[in-house]
Amino acid sequence: MLDCAIIGGGPAGLTAGLYATRGGLENVVMFEKGMPGGQITLSSEIENYPGATAHNLSGMDFMMPWLEQCQRFGLRHEMAEVTRVSHTKGGAFVIHTSDGKTQEAKSVIVGTGSTPKKAGFIGEEAYFGRGVSTCATCDGFFYKGKAVAVIGGGDTALEEALYLAKICTNVTLIHRRGSFRASPNTIKRLKATANIELVLNATVDEVFGDEMGVMGIRVTLEDHSTREINVPGVFVFIGNNVNNQVLRQEDGTFLCDMTPTGEVKVNLKMETSLKGLFATGDMRQDAPKQVVCAASDGAVAALQAIAYVDGH
Amino acid sequence: MLDCAIIGGGPAGLTAGLYATRGGLENVVMFEKGMPGGQITLSSEIENYPGATAHNLSGMDFMMPWLEQCQRFGLRHEMAEVTRVSHTKGGAFVIHTSDGKTQEAKSVIVGTGSTPKKAGFIGEEAYFGRGVSTCATCDGFFYKGKAVAVIGGGDTALEEALYLAKICTNVTLIHRRGSFRASPNTIKRLKATANIELVLNATVDEVFGDEMGVMGIRVTLEDHSTREINVPGVFVFIGNNVNNQVLRQEDGTFLCDMTPTGEVKVNLKMETSLKGLFATGDMRQDAPKQVVCAASDGAVAALQAIAYVDGH
Repeated sequence: MLDCAIIGGGPAGLTAGLYATRGGLENVVMFEKGMPGGQITLSSEIENYPGATAHNLSGMDFMMPWLEQCQRFGLRHEMAEVTRVSHTKGGAFVIHTSDGKTQEAKSVIVGTGSTPKKAGFIGEEAYFGRGVSTCATCDGFFYKGKAVAVIGGGDTALEEALYLAKICTNVTLIHRRGSFRASPNTIKRLKATANIELVLNATVDEVFGDEMGVMGIRVTLEDHSTREINVPGVFVFIGNNVNNQVLRQEDGTFLCDMTPTGEVKVNLKMETSLKGLFATGDMRQDAPKQVVCAASDGAVAALQAIAYVDGH
Repeated sequence: MLDCAIIGGGPAGLTAGLYATRGGLENVVMFEKGMPGGQITLSSEIENYPGATAHNLSGMDFMMPWLEQCQRFGLRHEMAEVTRVSHTKGGAFVIHTSDGKTQEAKSVIVGTGSTPKKAGFIGEEAYFGRGVSTCATCDGFFYKGKAVAVIGGGDTALEEALYLAKICTNVTLIHRRGSFRASPNTIKRLKATANIELVLNATVDEVFGDEMGVMGIRVTLEDHSTREINVPGVFVFIGNNVNNQVLRQEDGTFLCDMTPTGEVKVNLKMETSLKGLFATGDMRQDAPKQVVCAASDGAVAALQAIAYVDGH
């Protein structure tokens, strides 16, 4: 039986592996079907991880040293896709993988992240990480003193537009409806912000650019006319899929308590409602979706898992 | 008026400064009377901060790049000692410094850390960071396959001894009393752990060694005899002073809700019970006392402070 199974190989899972093995757990496996590193490896530049001070550091170059470091103390990486985590009456966890096999574990740390929804316009994937972003906190500063466009009309889109308005000269908020599904106070703040322009009832057709990156966005308005907005940055906030599938049981319920939006409920110790099960990174409630925060979650969860395993 | 005042210049304060300024707050000051960097700069080696992969990296060398990085976006460092943070009826915060001056701020992030208590034996300070440690999670692994001594008899000492017992060959737990002030379950686990030896009713006289580091510890037993225990590592867990003085008001109360042990109560957003006031790092409840966790707290608090300032 594993001392600890870690599901997901992003910053949270890797750091959990580092702390769990360095803290003396001996049978620790990180399940990650792809290459470890997580969503950040798609970023063209990272400058807000404390200690990562190189200029023009790509997400991929940033994460590569983590793999060796986090496996230095005995963490094993299993390239398998976890389909489900279940829990036996005896208190053990069972890790089900897509090859039909199962492994038992005394404790489980999940960190499978979340996936921003795609809007589906032309150029969205081609320019992702080169002008198209899904994280204002991460990438907003790269457009300091420039104009950007934001796509979306929910709370996150509006909050991110407000965040960007403090950094950028102009923010054009493009929304396919005529009104917002967001809290009244956020809408009020948005409308009171001088450098945010609203383009409502508009469909995004295309993000265009050249080999250097994005140059602008083309939208179709309510009257079927087309408008081009010249911006080097386009932020898409039309929703987020929490990767919580591994916690879903055969009867449709989840292994632990979740928020209405599908994130895992945790406390400051990253404990879920089920003893021995910890949740970390972008999949847990109130996640700030930053590498340093996911890494911290992994460390916290591993220290708790060590104490949990030791106590049983 | 400052947009945000940051009290303390450790990993939490520095990261808060990085995120607050990069997120567009313009008047951000970090108050730190000494050189920024925090407690970790006293460590002789750090190997569990994800991404810091250099071998034999000292705490000082590890933190130096943070200073430039975290000030790259406009964070100002004020070399002043904050004596108190108060709150006006109008909702502003007032930062009182030891030079008798005051400055107002819209939001405050405190991260003043905590200070492990000294036991007072000979060699404790001289060998600190070279064999004497106050953090098993940080330094335990450096004694993998070796024997260590632990000093203390409370919950933390026992938990840290259990943590070390998974990594080290032998743990000698030295306690000045004949019984422990810890939870019954922890005491039970301690007594059930084969490689932990208890030396009770014992006073630590001296940690001795040479220029390479610690070689052993000398204790006086109940019958006044002396015993030498040859270990390269000595962990001291006799309590912790939370540096919460800046939150104490003139009438003796605190600015926000605290735990019975003097840590600041926070939620996952690092919000305290007082709006606009955030607490981070080792001074907040359930702090894992790891650099990556303090840094994460700083990032979380800054993102919340930006939204708070923007909303007012």
